[in-house]
Amino acid sequence: MNKRITSVISGLLFAALSVNFSLAQAKSDNFSTQQLTQIADIKQQALESDLAWDLVESLTTEVGPRMPGTPGDKAGVLWAVAKFKAMGFDKVWTEPATFPKWIRYSESAAIISPAPQKLHITALGNSISTPKEGIQAQVIEFKDLAELEKSPENSAKGKIVFINYRMDRDRDGNGYGPAVQARRRGAVVAAQKGAVGYVMRSVSTAYHRFAHTGGSHYKEGVTKIVSSAISNADADQLHRLVALTKPVTININVQAKSMGEGTSYNVIAEYTGSEFPEQHVLIGGHLDSWDLGTGALDDGAGVALTMAAAKLATTYGKPKRSIRVVLFAAEEFGLWGAKAYVKAHQNSLSNIVAAAESDFGADKVWAFDANVHASALPLVSEIAVMMKSLGIEYINKNSARGGPDLIPFRPFNIPAFALSQDGTDYFDYHHTADDTLDKIDPEKLRQNVSAYAVFTFMAANANTRILGK
Amino acid sequence: MNKRITSVISGLLFAALSVNFSLAQAKSDNFSTQQLTQIADIKQQALESDLAWDLVESLTTEVGPRMPGTPGDKAGVLWAVAKFKAMGFDKVWTEPATFPKWIRYSESAAIISPAPQKLHITALGNSISTPKEGIQAQVIEFKDLAELEKSPENSAKGKIVFINYRMDRDRDGNGYGPAVQARRRGAVVAAQKGAVGYVMRSVSTAYHRFAHTGGSHYKEGVTKIVSSAISNADADQLHRLVALTKPVTININVQAKSMGEGTSYNVIAEYTGSEFPEQHVLIGGHLDSWDLGTGALDDGAGVALTMAAAKLATTYGKPKRSIRVVLFAAEEFGLWGAKAYVKAHQNSLSNIVAAAESDFGADKVWAFDANVHASALPLVSEIAVMMKSLGIEYINKNSARGGPDLIPFRPFNIPAFALSQDGTDYFDYHHTADDTLDKIDPEKLRQNVSAYAVFTFMAANANTRILGK
Repeated sequence: MNKRITSVISGLLFAALSVNFSLAQAKSDNFSTQQLTQIADIKQQALESDLAWDLVESLTTEVGPRMPGTPGDKAGVLWAVAKFKAMGFDKVWTEPATFPKWIRYSESAAIISPAPQKLHITALGNSISTPKEGIQAQVIEFKDLAELEKSPENSAKGKIVFINYRMDRDRDGNGYGPAVQARRRGAVVAAQKGAVGYVMRSVSTAYHRFAHTGGSHYKEGVTKIVSSAISNADADQLHRLVALTKPVTININVQAKSMGEGTSYNVIAEYTGSEFPEQHVLIGGHLDSWDLGTGALDDGAGVALTMAAAKLATTYGKPKRSIRVVLFAAEEFGLWGAKAYVKAHQNSLSNIVAAAESDFGADKVWAFDANVHASALPLVSEIAVMMKSLGIEYINKNSARGGPDLIPFRPFNIPAFALSQDGTDYFDYHHTADDTLDKIDPEKLRQNVSAYAVFTFMAANANTRILGK
Repeated sequence: MNKRITSVISGLLFAALSVNFSLAQAKSDNFSTQQLTQIADIKQQALESDLAWDLVESLTTEVGPRMPGTPGDKAGVLWAVAKFKAMGFDKVWTEPATFPKWIRYSESAAIISPAPQKLHITALGNSISTPKEGIQAQVIEFKDLAELEKSPENSAKGKIVFINYRMDRDRDGNGYGPAVQARRRGAVVAAQKGAVGYVMRSVSTAYHRFAHTGGSHYKEGVTKIVSSAISNADADQLHRLVALTKPVTININVQAKSMGEGTSYNVIAEYTGSEFPEQHVLIGGHLDSWDLGTGALDDGAGVALTMAAAKLATTYGKPKRSIRVVLFAAEEFGLWGAKAYVKAHQNSLSNIVAAAESDFGADKVWAFDANVHASALPLVSEIAVMMKSLGIEYINKNSARGGPDLIPFRPFNIPAFALSQDGTDYFDYHHTADDTLDKIDPEKLRQNVSAYAVFTFMAANANTRILGK
């Protein structure tokens, strides 16, 4: 035997011994030895699969932006139905969801004096239009929403309120909560202080000149004023000019419209379980996106990776319990698809054995946790062990939340899971024109698919039926 | 003596010894021992100075974009004159430069079919307008300008040509040359092949969704068609759709206008030399910028750092030779300020003992070279030695070019110098809306100032009078 052949054979022997060794190591009340091998294989297959990439490339390219109620949203629904069918899901269907429709036509802004220049601005969702010529007024700056709230009656009378709070960067996205209040209700508080317009520093960690859109609300009885956000670079600029003590006048021009009730569709597909078909693992993302980008990170990635994970989880045949992928509608306008889903399925939500939504981009999953009945914790530990080689920590707090679209599910105590992506860079792109396919790293996406496939297979096929708390 | 005092005194002794040691080490035919100490001190002072930052912050904030012939350009000239005077330059003056004026009003584009979505586009400088409703046609893609040039007669008849060449990233910016030809004359070649419109992948290394503008030209006798560029992400998108083999139709809408001859001004300031006032070191940048960003990297940084370096170089009093800072007008439209300067000064260009323009952003200067008569090479070596501690390599090829605005000076064989910034990231921002103040690193800017101050002091005060080749 020559050296090369010897080396190949000893390599094979070593590999075989390693497999035997690791199987011998694994003791499971939930899975057969054969299933443990299948899980390891699915995990590896997913790391080599381009399926999720192909899906998100197709969605963001052939459909593009998918704002609820737009032609792109309709095209997204047709796309999802066709893809699910082509992927061989056993059942594919849609369920309607209604929402308050809002359309953006145009948006622009400029510093008028003392230093005329354009501002990169976007209307916040639900904003009213300005008059055709825009609204022009002096800027009054507040460092955050709290400062505006504490300011005296009429403190902003006749002015445009500018809130200059900068979001902190953080792996868990913890900076979002403190920043987003100024987006959701800044225009209301500004109007209460007498303002004629509202502009905020975007909810953003970006170093690039993109304004970030996102949902905002008005309040019954409070005058509606234009609600908008500028990029970090523009907020820096406006802040510097205001600090120079000269009055700073800007013009904001937003043309947008509330269009009454719109309808879109949750797209749902299922691989039907062989033993307990009514029980199901529910994974998914939201199919809609904002209009500025192509919704790649938010949430084309979540859509694609959960579709792909479900497919991969059935590599070895029908699961014991069903695997259901739900692509929620109109998340960006206020979780309308999720609310409709919960209403339509309220009598059968107890059939959910595990639920997880991917809606935090496509960076690596770094943490795993559950929110389940104590009886399921041994199984959760087994899943966590299987994920470890993917670089995923088991948080073991049993307090996972499961993604934004699972918020309406919470009163029903479903077993929720978090496969937490690293969100350090997520808010660089979130709700901007810059949320495009090139921001997804194919290798990281595959790691996500692998984690979701392992989780899905194990929750669907375990001897333990996971219950909620 | 307590330990602390002992430690302070021995520290001082050590410092004194170090200085003596390094002075003893230095042997110079060009500088006195005192001057060598002054150079070291100026180098250090510059590393601690915020002067350049304050200047570029003021220019980009209080003036903003400075496209030739716009109100921002005029404001820039007034700003520079006022700043030079406030900084105590001995002479401050302006000299007119004319150029073909062009104004951008608006620009937008969209994929019409098969997947309707916006494209992030910008008109290239000098582009004609489209009709009000834009120009709509099928896209034909070419991988580069050469492929378009080689294509048959009428290959693009009735279509919009899309050149999809991606610029390479590189410390020296060597990727710019091969990419920029498609910007300068792509619309001409496209029209020659029968195209009705022209769009290119931006000359860009960016991962962000900004289109890069820049100069383009038409040719007498060739039909003028709209000339434009889309961001890298949009070019990726268009390429993917074209590759799907369906016809792809886009609409480009550019409203822009050529306005005949415009006038702006080179702003010039001088610290007058005590011994040879007519001889001078010429440093500077260009005061104009494109309209999309605030011209921070291109070329607010070059303006600010050469102004600051000149000031710092006079810390110890009048230089032997004059130090002249020239802020060139209308560089972006074709070096019009530099051409006017050379014309106005053609009989006295031989008084330039050293010239360097900073127009490549504000990343660290990593290389130094000259282009001078052999008799000056010992002095050049001395300058290089002084720059070494700033992390600057001496290239020693004696073939420096000295910056774009020095191109019109070349026929006069002036002694040119290159203080080469690291350009790895420069073309992420070049000619985009994203070229804003936050892209300048204050610490790197100080290193630039230090290098320029050392160079300027040494060229102005050396015993050797530097001659051109």
